[in-house]
Amino acid sequence: MNLTSKLDKNAREEGTVLAPRFDANGLVTAVVADAGDGTLLMVAHMNEEALRLTLETGIAHYWSRSRRTLWKKGETSGNFQHVVEMHVDCDQDALWLKVEVAGDGVTCHTGRRSCFYRAVETNGTEPVLRFTE
Amino acid sequence: MNLTSKLDKNAREEGTVLAPRFDANGLVTAVVADAGDGTLLMVAHMNEEALRLTLETGIAHYWSRSRRTLWKKGETSGNFQHVVEMHVDCDQDALWLKVEVAGDGVTCHTGRRSCFYRAVETNGTEPVLRFTE
Repeated sequence: MNLTSKLDKNAREEGTVLAPRFDANGLVTAVVADAGDGTLLMVAHMNEEALRLTLETGIAHYWSRSRRTLWKKGETSGNFQHVVEMHVDCDQDALWLKVEVAGDGVTCHTGRRSCFYRAVETNGTEPVLRFTE
Repeated sequence: MNLTSKLDKNAREEGTVLAPRFDANGLVTAVVADAGDGTLLMVAHMNEEALRLTLETGIAHYWSRSRRTLWKKGETSGNFQHVVEMHVDCDQDALWLKVEVAGDGVTCHTGRRSCFYRAVETNGTEPVLRFTE
């Protein structure tokens, strides 16, 4: 599986060849949502190996920027992410994964289902966070 | 509105203070979904000014990495994004915006509603893109 083919702008945007535009660190952004209700679970990053393993196995793999290592999400918790659907954006630097989370359904390291557990609101002119989970 | 306060890990993850963790380029990731049906529309980036303007006006502003300029989405097309809801993730380096798109409802520069108009599938062992819009 070769994911590094170079394409011109038109082929990248209007073609059927997957040619991810990895950034200077070799990463694309992965937006991960619950396949059931669409809730955004997390935002992560994939390098070429993580993307290839995700496509080959159907289980989401990422690149951990903090640990600087390949990361099969769920390998310690059991909360693997089974990829139901994946989309790529126009310029191929972002992926949208719809997943089913195994185990107890927790994605966030804080123990919550989603990493996006706080709403940003404004109190007068100042922003304030409100917990939603 | 001050968005640059430094917080320790616990306050950042479990507190009610918005303290975005801008990256080396001064940006956070903004994941933008349709407030109606949850469809992922685009992935963009905000610097501090774009985030402040978004909070103050309720209209999404971004930082254009290609044009290196502040970018009020819709200023040329009329397809402004009215922010219905905004969430921040655990470590405050990503935002999830649920928006209503004004005008003709187009978000992608290709003229499509969403930038994620192609599904990534596998044909045998090779990935292939299938248009969904």
